[in-house]
Amino acid sequence: MQYQPTQRTTVRRLKKRAVYDKAAVHAILDEGFICHVGFVVESQPYVIPTIYARRDETLYFHGAVASRTLKTLATGVDVCLTVTLMDGMVLARSAFHHSMNYRSVVVLGNARPVQDPEERLLALELITDHAVPGRWDEVRGPNELELKQTSVLALPLKEVSAKVRSGPPVDDDEDYSLPIWAGVVPMETHVTKPLDDGRVLPGVAPPNLARFKRFVKRAD
Amino acid sequence: MQYQPTQRTTVRRLKKRAVYDKAAVHAILDEGFICHVGFVVESQPYVIPTIYARRDETLYFHGAVASRTLKTLATGVDVCLTVTLMDGMVLARSAFHHSMNYRSVVVLGNARPVQDPEERLLALELITDHAVPGRWDEVRGPNELELKQTSVLALPLKEVSAKVRSGPPVDDDEDYSLPIWAGVVPMETHVTKPLDDGRVLPGVAPPNLARFKRFVKRAD
Repeated sequence: MQYQPTQRTTVRRLKKRAVYDKAAVHAILDEGFICHVGFVVESQPYVIPTIYARRDETLYFHGAVASRTLKTLATGVDVCLTVTLMDGMVLARSAFHHSMNYRSVVVLGNARPVQDPEERLLALELITDHAVPGRWDEVRGPNELELKQTSVLALPLKEVSAKVRSGPPVDDDEDYSLPIWAGVVPMETHVTKPLDDGRVLPGVAPPNLARFKRFVKRAD
Repeated sequence: MQYQPTQRTTVRRLKKRAVYDKAAVHAILDEGFICHVGFVVESQPYVIPTIYARRDETLYFHGAVASRTLKTLATGVDVCLTVTLMDGMVLARSAFHHSMNYRSVVVLGNARPVQDPEERLLALELITDHAVPGRWDEVRGPNELELKQTSVLALPLKEVSAKVRSGPPVDDDEDYSLPIWAGVVPMETHVTKPLDDGRVLPGVAPPNLARFKRFVKRAD
């Protein structure tokens, strides 16, 4: 299954990096942690980082009802939501052929305020568990006042494209004779030892880092 | 020295997280690796990741002359450039008080195409060395054709704000009696063992990871 490229999501430069396959896009979105949401106010674009979660063909994100960003987004303005995973630095023999290994997804569309109480709660659970798997079931859930202060938005995955670069650098033929190291320096994001807040009750264990699968150290 | 907040860069929500201090903003930009650039085409915002570098009160970024993004940005349209560093997940006893420790910078303004040959070369050097410190002096520099294919843009640091959250979660008083772990799970980005491209000449050593200071493992 593929996302249908539109005039706006057709990758023009480096077409071979374009990905429209739904499963591949979902995998990037599910591995990602934060997104950058772009929207326009009085012709000025703003780009704001936030966390999110995916369910099928919907992305959810949230924020304070009082926030300017959420207020603007809730009116259904045009948005662009971008998720970028950095996989490594690509070091070529020439400055020009340096590059990055990355996987990015760009979603265009209009967000919808989630009003249905059940869908709102589900979205908050998904967002919480996307960041910290299993967390929702451990914590004190939101009360009515907290829910009233929270804006939940849904963005459909309709107009979507991804771009992926992987593998070694590609140098000009004549540069391979140069005594310059070339290859990839991989990048990884890790979680490290949890720091409690000093008020945790006796006998309550910290989260096992194995829960953060995508952030756990691979063999270096 | 402070950036003067404008109507557009005045942080309204969680004002205590706002930072306008120039040295603090510079430190975030210098530690950052990629930025997300937002711009508008026919009322649709786009958010694209790219690398960048800072020199004094100017950010430089670059791309292919042929790219739609660079072509648009070179016309001096309104842009928003955002750099986000993720420092940790903040796990509270209630779902509502979960948060992130982060440092982000938002720059509003208009990019200027860099035409002066000397400034162009300097900008490319800065961008290369921002990603891989010391790399510029090791590699085969750009030739005329490569320079012709490269668009270099400069964005002044004039309308700038940063937001920073750090430290433990803040729970509601009555929730501290709950047997729920609360604290911070730190996040770090690391570089791992370089992988050569299989065509490196004998005796040419890989880059020492100590060069990537911001990505080298701290004590876990």
